[in-house]
Formats: sequence, structure tokens, C-alpha cells
Amino acid sequence: MENSFTVAICQMLVVDDKAKNLEKAEDMILKAVKDKGAKLVVLPEMFNCPYDNELFRQYAEELPGETTKMLSRLAKELNVFIVGGSIPEKSGGKIYNTSFVFNDKGENVGRHRKIHLFDIDIKDKITFKESDMLGYGEDITIIDTPFCPIGVAICYDIRFPELMRLMALSGAKVFIIPAAFNMTTGPAHWHQLLKVRALDNQVYVVAAAPARNNNAAYIAYGYSSIVNPWGKAIAEANEKEDIICGEIDLNYLERVREELPLLKHRRTDLYNLEFRR
Amino acid sequence: MENSFTVAICQMLVVDDKAKNLEKAEDMILKAVKDKGAKLVVLPEMFNCPYDNELFRQYAEELPGETTKMLSRLAKELNVFIVGGSIPEKSGGKIYNTSFVFNDKGENVGRHRKIHLFDIDIKDKITFKESDMLGYGEDITIIDTPFCPIGVAICYDIRFPELMRLMALSGAKVFIIPAAFNMTTGPAHWHQLLKVRALDNQVYVVAAAPARNNNAAYIAYGYSSIVNPWGKAIAEANEKEDIICGEIDLNYLERVREELPLLKHRRTDLYNLEFRR
Repeated sequence: MENSFTVAICQMLVVDDKAKNLEKAEDMILKAVKDKGAKLVVLPEMFNCPYDNELFRQYAEELPGETTKMLSRLAKELNVFIVGGSIPEKSGGKIYNTSFVFNDKGENVGRHRKIHLFDIDIKDKITFKESDMLGYGEDITIIDTPFCPIGVAICYDIRFPELMRLMALSGAKVFIIPAAFNMTTGPAHWHQLLKVRALDNQVYVVAAAPARNNNAAYIAYGYSSIVNPWGKAIAEANEKEDIICGEIDLNYLERVREELPLLKHRRTDLYNLEFRR
Repeated sequence: MENSFTVAICQMLVVDDKAKNLEKAEDMILKAVKDKGAKLVVLPEMFNCPYDNELFRQYAEELPGETTKMLSRLAKELNVFIVGGSIPEKSGGKIYNTSFVFNDKGENVGRHRKIHLFDIDIKDKITFKESDMLGYGEDITIIDTPFCPIGVAICYDIRFPELMRLMALSGAKVFIIPAAFNMTTGPAHWHQLLKVRALDNQVYVVAAAPARNNNAAYIAYGYSSIVNPWGKAIAEANEKEDIICGEIDLNYLERVREELPLLKHRRTDLYNLEFRR
């Protein structure tokens, strides 16, 4: 296991044109690896498709599809891990909000289907009902890498401390969160949630958002961030398209766990949290 | 059930003199009720005693003791609920970090003994080992009031999302957190933790800290806060002695729970969290 590696987030502007989105993703992944030395590259939620129930079916792909083939090819060519944000996945007649992960040989080594679907109705602000269109994921997703195990969860999943804790207890030392908070929940909650999930679970949180597109039906907040296990943002984008990078330092992570031993201090004699499957 | 009531936090300066601390607490409770109309008054962690392992035994009391009698008398006289921050409690040869709660008749209706003891060792910053001196609490504490059920947890307890979630699942709509974060963990973590616990659990968080005493062995951060279920601070002190007040609006709480139904969206088919007793 290496003790330190560079992760990059490609905060790309997503448009209503799949070919353009794939071109943009490829271009940004290339830059993240060649210019910034990233070993793990992360894309945002729904990076090949506007975040819009009306469009998910039309953009959806089965595995392997146009998008996943591109990610596989790039991972192999560039010899890096890629967490492919998420895309609408077609499977068994259903559509899922799914993150596909590729290793440095281009093999698909993980798949997270969003577990918690985004059904909210904030008066005069934001209404969205993913469950009208999407199926529910049923698994916690932890992926072994040469660096450390990483956990993947998508956007609204981050709001559930049970899932986050179970990812940490399953060994994940980095949480990868492709996400697309909006202009209501973003300013109000995004930064604090990322920090406290990292802090509570003594992990790095790598949260990848799309750039803000004011012409879209759903306007994403942006502000992709990398947060260390002390709860401090070590890299942060603003609302514009950008590639941000951060060093995942596993020695630092172990030091935080030693100095502030939250995971050891859990009162497992008093409470029990478990995955049912 | 009333749907709205005023809560006050007495952010008092704690000194190495029990009589002076009790006098100060009484004075501030009186002001909180008479000047500010508080129906529920909250004191900080270890409000009658400096936060110092060397002093806990000397300041400790059995129930009923000097401190709890004073709180009981005031609650009855003023016709309010008092969450008596915490004090060192002597019981069965052990010392606990305990919060006693009194109803508006002066009856002791609850007792929370800190469950998670504060044992940390951050190099060149802060080292403390409560477990050298204190016994462990073993219970989640939920107290019925005419307003709504309230949960009580003490300081380091707030770092454990399992406990916070179990308090909410037990029906608590207000979390009362007597606490004394320090000059390392306070600036780094205090505000975010309060906000995310309120937000995740869709409750009000009422977190009472002592004022900063730069002459103390352990220097508290201060910044007592009241946070609403949307994760927004509706009242916040700075480091100085102060009484802060906020309105607990249970209609607003229900509205947040309806618009952003986090508690309903928990995937209890996939994960299970339970108290073991």
C-alpha cells in the first residue's frame, strides 16, 4: 500500500448533449492525469446527462455502453482509477443512478447504485422526485484499490449518517461522493455535511459536483471539495468548471485516528449499527 | 402540547469556587426567565466546577446536594424546566459527569451521565483523559416535557452520530448539549457538528458552553448556540459571558420534516441501528 496519492475532481459543465459531455469528461480526465498527476479521478453525478427526470431514460445505457467504454479505455490508457461520477444506467427494464468504477487496467471493479433517492418538496424552492423515474440501489459499495479501500455513495446518500458510518466500518478510508446539490440545499448544507462526514468517520471525503449551469432545469451548486479527516477542506472549487486536486495522506489519517480516537470510542456495548444483508 | 417556547442558555464563566459558580448560575437563570421569558433554561457542562480531573472529586455531590437543591428550588419558584448543564456526581464510590434535569415543579425528572468519555491526545495541543477519573454513563436520556420530548447528551457525546440518531428515533425534538469544547476542537469542529446534528436529525440543537476563562487549566471555546432543524444557528454567543435565547418552533420543525423527509427516507430495510438495552 502506498501512503499518499493524488486525487482529482473534474467539475465539468454538463449540457444536454451526450457526445459533448463525453468529450468534456475525456478532456478533463486527461488533464487531471497528465498535468496534475492524479492517480484517482472522480467525475460528478450524472456527468453525461442533464439532471432531469425527463431525460434519464433517453440518456441511459446498459453496461457496457458508450460512456463506460470510454471510461474503461481512459483508465487503462492512463493507468489510473476512475470513479465515473454517475450516469443513468438501464438494467432489467429499470433506470438507476449509478456510479461505475474502473481500475488502472480498465476493468469495472465496482458499481454503486444510489441507495437513497432524492424526493424533496421545499415550497417555492426546489421539488424533485427521483423515485418517479429511478430504481433504488440496495448495496453499500466499497472498492479495494492499491492505495486503500474506497467507499462510493451518491449525493443524497450523504445525508444518511448510518450509510456513511457503515462505509467507514467496512474499511473505507476515502469516501467518493459524486453529487449535485442545488441552489437551495447547496449553500445551506453542502460544506458542513462534507466536513462532518469526514470528521465523524475519520476519512477523506472527495465530493464531485458539476459546474453550475444557469441554463439547466436543475441548477447545480458546484463547489466540489476534498475534505481531510480533521474536517478541513484541502481543496475546493467555486461554481465554475475546474479541476481540483488533493493529496490523500494515509499517514495523516492514522494520526488523526490516534489523537482523536472517535472510531475506537464508539459505545458498541450500548448501540449496534449493522447492514442487514 | 404548546407549539413554540423560548429556551435560554446561560453561558456563565466558571471559576474555582463552587459558591461563586452557584451564585452566578442562580443570577443568570433568574435573568433568563424574568427578562427573557425562557420556559427552559440550560447551563453548561461542569458549571459548578472547573473542568479539571484534579478537581472533580472535591466538587462532586451526591443527589440531593447543594447544587441540585438550588436548581430544584429555582425550577419550582420560577415555574420553568432547567437542564442543569453537568456537575461531577458522586454515586456508589464513582464520579460521573452528570446532567440533572428539573421540571417546573422542581422535581428531578431526568439524569444523563456522559456516555462517551473524553480521552484525547492531540500532540502539542490538548490532552485530556476523563476516564482516569470518571465513570461511564450507560443510558440514552429522553425527557418528556409539556412542549415535546427532549434529549440530553454531554459534550463529547455529540461526536457520535449513532447516539444522536437514537435520540431522534426515541422522539426527541430538541437535543440539549451541555458542552465545553476547547481552543483546538472548538474552532475546528464545534459549529459544524451542531449544525449537522440538527440537520441530520431534523431537531433543534441547544448547545451550552461555559464562557472562555483564559486563567483556567482547560480553556473552553464558548460560542453557545441554538440551531434549527434546517441546520441554521438562530442564536449564538461569542466567547464572553452571556445569556442567549431562541424560539423552539415545533411547527417549523414539522415543516422541515415534510419538505426534506430525511427521517422517512432512511433505508431501514438495508441498515439497522438499535440501542442494545
